Formats: sequence, C-alpha cells, structure tokens
Amino acid sequence: MVKAYLAIGVALLFVFCIAAVGLHHSGRRFNKFDKVSIDDIYKTDSKIIQENIKSENIKKYLRTFTKEPHIAGSDANKKVAYAIASAWSEAGLEDVHTLPYEVLLSYPDFENPNTVLIQSSSGEKVFQSKGISPVILPDEQSEKFAGHQWLAYAGNGTVSADVVYVNRGSVNDFKNLKLMGVDVKGKIALMRYGQGFRGDKVQNAQSAGAVGAILFSDTSDVAQDGIEPQNVYPNKIWMPNEGVQRGSLMHLSGDALSPYYPSKKELFRSRTIEEAKEENVILSIPALPISYTTALQLLKRMKGRPVPFDWQGLIGGNLTYKLGPGFTNNEKLTINVFGHLKTKRIRNVIGYIRGSEEPDRYVMLGNHFDAWVYGSIDPNSGTAVLAEVARAMMQTINETSWRPARTIVFNAWDGEEHGLIGSTEFVEEFIDILQKRAVVYINMDCIQGNSSLTVDTVPMLEHVAIEAAKNVDNPSKVEKQRGRKTVYDTWLNVFPDKTQGVPKMTVPGGGSDHAPFLNYAGIPVINFSYKNYSTFDTYPLYHTMYETPFTNEHLLDTDNMSVHRAIGQYWAELAKTFSDEVVLPMNITHYASIMLTSYLPQLKASISGINATKLDFENVRTQYALLTKSAQDMLAMTQKFEKTIHATKNSFSQNPYDPKHVNAVNERLMSTERCFVNPRGVSKHNPSARHVLFSISDADSYSNSLMAGIQNAIDEYQSKPTKTGLREIINQISIVQYSVICVVNTLRDVI
Amino acid sequence: MVKAYLAIGVALLFVFCIAAVGLHHSGRRFNKFDKVSIDDIYKTDSKIIQENIKSENIKKYLRTFTKEPHIAGSDANKKVAYAIASAWSEAGLEDVHTLPYEVLLSYPDFENPNTVLIQSSSGEKVFQSKGISPVILPDEQSEKFAGHQWLAYAGNGTVSADVVYVNRGSVNDFKNLKLMGVDVKGKIALMRYGQGFRGDKVQNAQSAGAVGAILFSDTSDVAQDGIEPQNVYPNKIWMPNEGVQRGSLMHLSGDALSPYYPSKKELFRSRTIEEAKEENVILSIPALPISYTTALQLLKRMKGRPVPFDWQGLIGGNLTYKLGPGFTNNEKLTINVFGHLKTKRIRNVIGYIRGSEEPDRYVMLGNHFDAWVYGSIDPNSGTAVLAEVARAMMQTINETSWRPARTIVFNAWDGEEHGLIGSTEFVEEFIDILQKRAVVYINMDCIQGNSSLTVDTVPMLEHVAIEAAKNVDNPSKVEKQRGRKTVYDTWLNVFPDKTQGVPKMTVPGGGSDHAPFLNYAGIPVINFSYKNYSTFDTYPLYHTMYETPFTNEHLLDTDNMSVHRAIGQYWAELAKTFSDEVVLPMNITHYASIMLTSYLPQLKASISGINATKLDFENVRTQYALLTKSAQDMLAMTQKFEKTIHATKNSFSQNPYDPKHVNAVNERLMSTERCFVNPRGVSKHNPSARHVLFSISDADSYSNSLMAGIQNAIDEYQSKPTKTGLREIINQISIVQYSVICVVNTLRDVI
Repeated sequence: MVKAYLAIGVALLFVFCIAAVGLHHSGRRFNKFDKVSIDDIYKTDSKIIQENIKSENIKKYLRTFTKEPHIAGSDANKKVAYAIASAWSEAGLEDVHTLPYEVLLSYPDFENPNTVLIQSSSGEKVFQSKGISPVILPDEQSEKFAGHQWLAYAGNGTVSADVVYVNRGSVNDFKNLKLMGVDVKGKIALMRYGQGFRGDKVQNAQSAGAVGAILFSDTSDVAQDGIEPQNVYPNKIWMPNEGVQRGSLMHLSGDALSPYYPSKKELFRSRTIEEAKEENVILSIPALPISYTTALQLLKRMKGRPVPFDWQGLIGGNLTYKLGPGFTNNEKLTINVFGHLKTKRIRNVIGYIRGSEEPDRYVMLGNHFDAWVYGSIDPNSGTAVLAEVARAMMQTINETSWRPARTIVFNAWDGEEHGLIGSTEFVEEFIDILQKRAVVYINMDCIQGNSSLTVDTVPMLEHVAIEAAKNVDNPSKVEKQRGRKTVYDTWLNVFPDKTQGVPKMTVPGGGSDHAPFLNYAGIPVINFSYKNYSTFDTYPLYHTMYETPFTNEHLLDTDNMSVHRAIGQYWAELAKTFSDEVVLPMNITHYASIMLTSYLPQLKASISGINATKLDFENVRTQYALLTKSAQDMLAMTQKFEKTIHATKNSFSQNPYDPKHVNAVNERLMSTERCFVNPRGVSKHNPSARHVLFSISDADSYSNSLMAGIQNAIDEYQSKPTKTGLREIINQISIVQYSVICVVNTLRDVI
Repeated sequence: MVKAYLAIGVALLFVFCIAAVGLHHSGRRFNKFDKVSIDDIYKTDSKIIQENIKSENIKKYLRTFTKEPHIAGSDANKKVAYAIASAWSEAGLEDVHTLPYEVLLSYPDFENPNTVLIQSSSGEKVFQSKGISPVILPDEQSEKFAGHQWLAYAGNGTVSADVVYVNRGSVNDFKNLKLMGVDVKGKIALMRYGQGFRGDKVQNAQSAGAVGAILFSDTSDVAQDGIEPQNVYPNKIWMPNEGVQRGSLMHLSGDALSPYYPSKKELFRSRTIEEAKEENVILSIPALPISYTTALQLLKRMKGRPVPFDWQGLIGGNLTYKLGPGFTNNEKLTINVFGHLKTKRIRNVIGYIRGSEEPDRYVMLGNHFDAWVYGSIDPNSGTAVLAEVARAMMQTINETSWRPARTIVFNAWDGEEHGLIGSTEFVEEFIDILQKRAVVYINMDCIQGNSSLTVDTVPMLEHVAIEAAKNVDNPSKVEKQRGRKTVYDTWLNVFPDKTQGVPKMTVPGGGSDHAPFLNYAGIPVINFSYKNYSTFDTYPLYHTMYETPFTNEHLLDTDNMSVHRAIGQYWAELAKTFSDEVVLPMNITHYASIMLTSYLPQLKASISGINATKLDFENVRTQYALLTKSAQDMLAMTQKFEKTIHATKNSFSQNPYDPKHVNAVNERLMSTERCFVNPRGVSKHNPSARHVLFSISDADSYSNSLMAGIQNAIDEYQSKPTKTGLREIINQISIVQYSVICVVNTLRDVI
C-alpha cells in the first residue's frame, strides 16, 4: 500500500520535469496578463484556494495522524510518515518521498517509570509518585505506555539528596539563590516549567553543581481556574491533576553526533556520545518531570526561607513555598530515572507543486509530525492543516487555470521534539541548494490557542504577514460581530504594537523547525500560530498525553475547527504571495530602518555597559559609529533599489515582463538576508548559530540573541576584561558591519 | 587628468544601467538566431576581435605601465593604477574605478642595502656584497633604487653565524641534511631558488632553528649557456652576473592583519603584527637574496662534506659544493638586513563590458600590475595585453553588432607580489556576490617564455582551454612552417599528456591571483601563460631589475611581440566563449571521471600508507569505499544531466530559447564547483584554503594539495597516531564525500 505512493529516490531528469509540469504548462503564466487583470485573477485564485480548505478534511487528517503515540524513531511514527506521504500523494503533490537520517535519540524505560520517593528519616516510604499519567478518555488514550512521564536526554540513575527550589531555573534564578545563601551543590533542583527552555534549566542546575533536577508545571501557569475536576481537562483546557509536560533536554539542534553535516548512513559522525556529554550537548544529571499534584508533596514538606514574592506559585492554595534545602522532618528525597540513548532512523517527508515559471525557486512550507504522545495539538494540528493546504491547492490547480509560478515545497519534519533534528539535518544536507533556491520558509508547528493569529518573522517579511492576514476571514463569529472581519483585525486588537500601529511581530527564536533555516542558512522565515490572550508561554496541555483530537475539537477550536481552517487559509495565502508575485515581496528598506531604529540602539545600550578605560572604550565607540554609517548606507541603497523595483513593476504594464531582468532583481533581493550568514559561525558553542543578527542565544535556547557574536564578546569581556577581549568586541562589531556592507554591495550594480 | 577618467564609488542604479547598455541593447542577442547562423556569426565575431588585437598597442601599453619601478603601495604604483584606469576608460570600458585596501606591506631601507660580509678570523673584511644590482641599460633602468636586492617580510637585523648549504630548502632537504649529520640550528641557511616558494624555504630554515637565510639563483637554473657577457643579459635572456631575484616571504595570501575579511579602512583588522609573527604568517629571521657571483664567494670557502649529487649546482664551474657548517679558514659570515613593515593603501582597478543578456553573470579576466621593479615581464606583459584585449573588444562592439551576452569584468590587481593581497582582499570583500555571479576567473600573470601556451585549469574547463587554443593562430612562423597552424598544435607538441592525447593541464596552485578565486570561493579558474621548453620554474630574469620592455621586445618575443598578441587573442577567445555560449561550457562529467580515475586512486595510495591496526584501517577503507560510491553516483548524475543540456540546446533550433529554463540549467552548472567549498576551511593554518579538493598545500605554497584536509589528517596521524587522529582521517574523507553528494543533489531535480 505504502510503496505505491512513494517515489523514493527517483531522480527525474530536470528536462522531463519541465516538459511535464513546468515551463510549458498551459495554465496561467504570470507574464501573460496586464496589470489590472493580474490583480483580479490573483485575488480570485486566492479566494478559491481558501474556500477549498475544509474543516472536515482537517479533522479527518488529524485523526489519521494521531492514532497512536508516535515518538521519533518509533514504528508508529514511521507509519505517520507514510500516512503523510500517502495523503500528499493522493492530493496530487509531485515527487513525494521520505528523506532518512540515522540520529541519536533518547527513550525512557517503559517497564520502569521515573519516580520521586520520599522516605521518613527512619527509612519508611512516605510518598512515591507513579511516574505515569492516568488515562482519562480511553477511546483516544488507550496505548499502554502513553502516560509515561519522562525527559529525553536526561542522565540516568538513582540520586538521593536534599531538594532546593530554584523558581524557573534561569541563570538569574541560580544567581539570586546564591545571594540568598542557598547552595544547590550536591542537591536536587526543583524548578517550575515556563519562561525558558527546560534544557537550559537542567543545564543551569548541572552547572551549579546539582546532582538531579525535577521540573513541574505550576498551577499558576496551567490550572488558572483551579484544580477541581470541573475546572480542568477534560472539562476545560487546563491541566488535570496528574498531567505532566514531557520534553527534550538536548542543547543545540540537530543530531548530537553529526555537527555541521547530515547524519546520513553513508557519512561519518564526527562526535562520540562521550564528547557530546563533555561538551554539554547532552546532560549528565538525572532529571524528571512531575505533576503539580506530586510537586505539592515536595513543596509542602520543604523547609528553609520563604521564597521571594515572584518565585511563589499557587500549588497548595495558601502554601508558602520554601527555598530548602531539605524537608522539615528531614525526610529523604530520592529520584529514580531510567532511560537510554539509541541511534535510530528518522524520516522527513517532502513533496512538491512544481512552479510553472521558476521551478528552481522554492517557497517552503513546513511542520513536524513526531510527537511525545498522540500529538494532536503539537504538532499534528499543523500536520493536518498542511495536508489540507496541499490538497486544496492541488484541487485548485485541477479545477482552474492556476498553478504557482514558483515551486511550493511541502515539508514534514521528523525528530523535532528531540531537538529540531529532522529539519536541522535537512538544512545541513541541502545547505548549498537551499541558499540558492529557497525564497522563504514558512513554519506552523501547532495551534496553541484560539484568540488570535500570532506571527514571528524577519523585518523584510512583516508586510507580507500583514497583507496576507487581511485576506483571511475571521474564524471567530464573536469577533466578526464586533466588526473585526479578518484575521488581521483581531490580531491587531489582541497583540498590537502600539507605537507602530500594526500587530507586534518579533524575529523567531528557537523551539521549532524554522530555526535552522534562519539561523544557519539565512533564509527568511515566517513562524506563525494561533494563541490565547493569556501570556503564559504555551497552552496548558502542552506535551501531555491529553493532546488527542477531542481536545482540538471540543476544548480548543469548538466552532467546527474554524481556527484550524483559518490557519490553513493563512498558510496558503502566504505561500501564494511568495510563489506568484513576480518581484519577490521583500521589504529590504524596512530591514535597514529596523537596523537603525531598533537594533543599533540596543547595541549601543549593550556597549555603554562595558567597563573599560576611556581610550579603550573610544575604540569600541568608533567601530560602533562606523557600523552606524554602514547601516545608513544600507538604508540609502535599499531606498534606491526600491526605485529599480518600482520601474521593473511598471514595465510589466507596457511590455511582456523580461525574466532575465526580473531574475537579476530577485537574486539581489534573495541575497540580502544571506549576507548576514557568517560561515564561520557566531558562537563557539553552537554550530547552528551563523546569522550575525539573529542567532539563538547561548543562554536562552528559545529566544534570539540580537547580534550574538558581539553579545558573547561583551559577556566574555565583562567576566574577564583583557585587551584581547576588548579587541574581540570591536572585531565582532566589524563582522556585523561586513554583513551590512555586503547588502550595499549586492544591491549596487557595480562591484 | 586622472580624476576625469575615474568613476570611483559612483553607484549607478541597476535599472538605469540595464536601460543604458543592458537588456534593451539593440545589438545581437543570443536568442535571435537559429543554430547555423549563430555558429557562423559566433566565429566571425571571434575572428574580428582577434584581428583587432595589435602588437603595436601592446608595446605602447607596456611602455606606459613600466616607466618606473612600481612596488605595491608606492606613488609610482598608484600612477600605474590610474594609467590602467585611463587606458580602460579610453577604450570604452564601463564603470572603471579603483578599489582601495589598507594593507600591511614590507619595504627595504633604500639607504642601507642588504649585504653579506665575510671577515677573516682576525676580523679583516675579505668580501662584502654591494646589495645592489648594476644598471645595464640606462635608458630603461635609471631609477635610483632599482637595483636594491631584498626580500619582503624578512626579519631585520645583523646576524653572524656559520653557513650551512641546504639545497632548495625544502622540508625534505632539511630532513636529509639532518640525516647527513649537519645541524642548521644557530646557523645561516644558504639555499638555491627554485622548486618551491621562497617563503617556504625561509620558513623551513626558521623552523629548523636557523638564525638567518640566504637565497641565490644557481647558474644551473638561470645561466645555462655560461656566465660570460655574450651568454647573458642583455645579449641573451639569461641572468647577468649581479642579477638577483626579489620576492616576498609572506606565508598565506592576503593582508596579514585581516584574515577572512577585507582590509577596508572602515573595518577592523583582527590580527596584530605580533600575532602574525607568532603564527608564522610573517617570519622573524633576517633573509636576503644574492647573485650567483656573490654566492660563489660563499660556496668556494665552505668546508664540510661534499653535497649529494642532486644538491650540486654549477656555480664556479668544477667547484664542489660543501654542506658546511662554516668556512675552511674559519672566516666569519655576517648578514645585514634592513627593512620595515608599513600599512599602506593599495588599489585594484575594475572595469566592465556589461552583458546584453545576463548582466549579473560575470566572466572575469585578471592580471596584477604591481612589480618588484619595472615589471615589464612580471606582471606588465599581462597588464599590457589585458588593456589591449579590452580595447579590441570595445572596438568590435563599436564596429559590429556584437556585444557579449554576459558581463566581462576586467581586473587589475595590486599587491600581488607581496602575497596576492589585492585579489585576496577583493574575494574576501565580495565573496557573496562572486559566488552568485562569477562564471569563471581567467588569470594571466605574465608571459614566461615563447615556446608554447601552457594552461592550468580545473577539470570541468579543460575542453574550453583546448577549443579556444584551436581558434588562435600560431604566433611562431617557424612552428607554422612545421605545419602547426594553431596555438593548440604547438601546445600539444611541447607539453603533451601522452596517455590522453591532449596537452597536459593541471589544477592551478598558488603563486598568482587565481588562487583565492578557486581555493577560497570555489570559482572555476583558468591560469595560462606562454612558457619555454626548459623545465626550470620560470624565466631567468624573474623578479630582477632587468624586466624592462627591451627584454620583452628583443630577447623574449622578438617577432613584433607576436607571442604577446597571441596571448591576448587566446584570452579574448576564452572570454567570448564563456560570455556567449547560452549553456555554460562546463564539462562536469569530465570532473566526475577525473575524480574516479585520478583523485581517488591517489587518495587510495595515501591511505594505504597509514600505519594502523587492521580493524582501525578497515574503518578508513570503508569510508573510502563510500566516497568512491558517491563519486560513481556523481558520474551517473552528470551523465544524466548532459542529456538535459543536450535537450536544452536542441530546443533552440525549434523555439526561441527559454531564459528561465536556461537559467536553471546554468545555475546548476555554476553550483557544481561551489559544492567543494567547505566554509569552515580545510586547514588550521591557512584561512584561504576552503576547497576540499584543490587547496594550497600547507607544505608547498606554490602547489595544490589534493584533498588537503584528508592529507593534513593523515600527516598528523602519522606523526602521532591516536584514535582521535584516525577518526579525523575518516571524518575528512566523509567531508569530501559530502561535497560530492552536494553535486549529485544539485543536479537532481528533487531534493
């Protein structure tokens, strides 16, 4: 059955492909219309695609992809990969096939759950957690090991030690704990989820000398209406008593054993597991996640000073959290963590709608499909929507004269949850091709709420994100009644950037598959989702076994999955914009403006904190001034280039468009973001960090660190001021400047 | 005067340029003819350009560019830069301007010549060299300091020590010297020029503990007819008695203080002079060059064992060379070296003939113009020819309907002699642009003889080098009388590759400005010249003050500069081929074949020398086998792609050619060589070495080291066998394989 759908490894000759679906396609070609009719047809095609996206199909796909728990590397997940390939092939995508990688994954011991044990000082068991969340809806959660509570890439073993509470486990939290006179060395760190990557928390604990780590979700985050049955799942969206967030602790993205290169079976993996541990890519201390119900058993016994006001959570009602170390009656705490590392095959799925005009220009859409358990929110809400986008586009192609001018590439990533492995290995494998052909990568990991669209993107694409949102109907009847007709209207209302009068957008950080595209390859990305008004990082049932279709349909998106549908419509609208606009919609002038009005002032603030002699500081300031001058040159050049774009667009109304000229303009536009990739990287610790403006921070794996190379140099100098260190700050400023000058040179007609 | 010619820094808007000279040019467009007439017109245009190239103009240009000694950074050389800009502008090149860099140069102390002093054991002066070569033709060599004998980037100071003879100063020579029981530590190393880069010789001496170095040209190399006046310059081409080869000792190419980045005044230079010395980029020991006449004064006094047979030269007739250390009568040897480092401005010159069809595809022609003294051979024979190529092409454009389809970029490099500085800084500055737009870089440093064309190129361009040579008339009347009508016929006769039935070509190493294009940027290059039958590295008067126009006209190219003219015709023919062939002439199948038939067997031989346990060795062999498999995949894929090319070409006879399809095919062809660039480099020591197949060897700066990364790993393992070292060998093989797979993926239509 499966094989019939797949064309694995079949290398169609380029020329055949062109003949079959490409340049000689009889459909609309984007040079065959005058300006007015192009606009009209453009909008009509766009509306047809959107109308073809149906909630019923999304529901059907969602159930198909969430039948079993399907963690990366499992047989169940392989079945999901083939189900996606099957769905895409049936829809009519071309060249659908899988791309395998052999990567180091982490699994629990399903026969031995991870537990927390409390014993009285005389050794009697006072409390022991089960380590397994209970089945609540048997119809959807019946798989034997679905409830297993664990963290990937945790160290193994049994550790007994006093517990210490360290709030969110951030670098600052550990610093403050020390100031409060509590040493975490030799202790077990108890930390709340939220406000940062869990791997950073455990890493910080390990660095501080902790021998074990426990993570829990606080009711203040995940059960804000109370923990009574009527206030939590399955009656509300909030976390039930024994629910637990799973997740990975791996630092860095991609296969831990093959930095820079794809972990293909025929290539060598340059790093050993021992080296990965030495380099802190994989942590050593045992760590496990617990429910708020289990956390209460610890918190209520803890002694020591009460925690600061902003460290206090809501577990146990009026219970005052204590810092520790240890329990009031000197009970003994033991954690048991069982698991193993294993190299397994993962497989991305890829499929195409070949462009009629520029088949070698790729508009890339992606979502991952591996899940900690059933994954019907994270990630298969996205998987289901993407399959429906593919189907609706192919339906439109079959029923109208439309075909995208550029190739639309559909990507389903494996191994994301373990650490963006499928997408990172893919980008490492095809970096040369992607840097030449990829126009944009548009990521949608999963729906996270139902209030509003939320978009992270790079400055040059903000306007596209806005215009597309204006073209999508509001999925909320209530919002429409309030006069907010489009997705954009609600977005602007819920997440406004008040100074700019547009919705708030930031540059995407880590945490999903857009990261390697932007940070490693310099490909502009859009990462979007739907979120709630609530400010907590994510939805309460995140990474629990309760992410099954019931949750999507009955708790999160209750109006016939209208939000899922709107997400698909927005995705399609973005894809169509990038595939069909003759001149690529990249606002590089806005990029230059943001540099001058936001990034450079932020840098100035960082620099002004440097502790140096006046003379030394003057040298830093001088280089900063030169960088500012280069950024001004960039702005002037982008403004000039806009005239070129304008003239190019105007020429279409008089003449058939000249593809050679358009090619040259588009190549320059595409080159702009690439200029900011430093092939030698910006961080000693993170091979994926190569974008000199936007790279994942060394200290916070979820967020972007602006100009990470400069920031790392400043941090290093501040901790140990040397002449060489100061020179390195100047050098890193100069490296950013080099990228800015690259843009100027690229847009200029003369070297 | 000068400013009128220059359009420095004028950033013409792309669209204006297009309108003025580009896409709407009324001349021939390469899609407007059917196949037969294209070929006819192609040949006609080609003949016209060649006929327009005139010896008289070359002679005139040569005299213009060689009026004064013009070392990099001098006012005289600035005048030459402006003279080139002037000549190009007058010829009609577009956007002619200079590109300045501030770089670390080295100069002698003209008031204090470098000398060799021999004193008797009682302290009386026995001999002292003048350190200055005499003026022989006052009309052309009258500049006061032209005769100064020196080496750039030598250490300074006065050193007295015993002399030791170390033949050519290679790593092997030093090894053998040690085996013969002579220690160079604390001694002055006396070494012959030839068979390697002089900087390597002095580096090897310094590494072996020598405190000073003397380089000399042996009469066996440079005065093969004898040293009598009638047998040397100005009566013959051979080196006169007091002639001396100057040159640079700097290791690595480009500005010593700005690795990876251009040394622009607004950017930071990350390396200090002290660091450059610590890292051996700049050497520390005093070193100077002497004539064979001065060398005799040393050689005839030396004691110790007679040198091995192949170390023996011909200075002093029957004189037997001795190893040393020291002199027979214990005379004392002292060397005095005076000089300084200084940061100075250099300036490349650039000019364009904008292509009518693909203005953003660059066919790049280049030659440097800075010289040690007058430079009428090295490099201004090339500078004069390039100016005439530019003039003849513009004449053809003005008088016919021809205009190149792709842009031809003319480059005159500054600072080559000090260490490829102008071209390296240029490639570092514009790497992003060049990797996108450059089709080929064609280098001609200088004419080196008059016997035959000689070409170094990458495998994919060998056929172009051959075909172009068949289209150029033989400049030698004698050869024509022998039936060898074309440049190709003589080339095949003089330098045959007997197994292949074609002229012998190798991949170019270091030593001229093509190096950064190939080794750093992965741009296919052709480096060509004319050479003599003689096998010595270069022409005898190399880097002497006797390189003035008299030598070109009366000793080297006596038939009205017909060889100079043929060089220009060949250059133009190559340029026209790359600019006008619709599908880029890149034989990637040949590349794959060479990999399988030559490179992999060479690698196999290297590997088989590894000293490891059977099991460990098996792992190396396995990776080698996988690499071979990937190379076979590359061959199969290139053969398939040839069918695409064939179909593309055939389509022109039926339809107007489709630029979008051609663009896609050409982009894939251009991407092929780029796949072999590893952005993280292949050598810890050499920032310019990034091509995994073709990079400059760490041990020999003039030659290419095949798969340098693997070779370095093997060398390191052989000197210190560890498990990690063995893994690194396998890793480096895998990295080459990754590049090979990149080619397969690039040519395939499906990721």
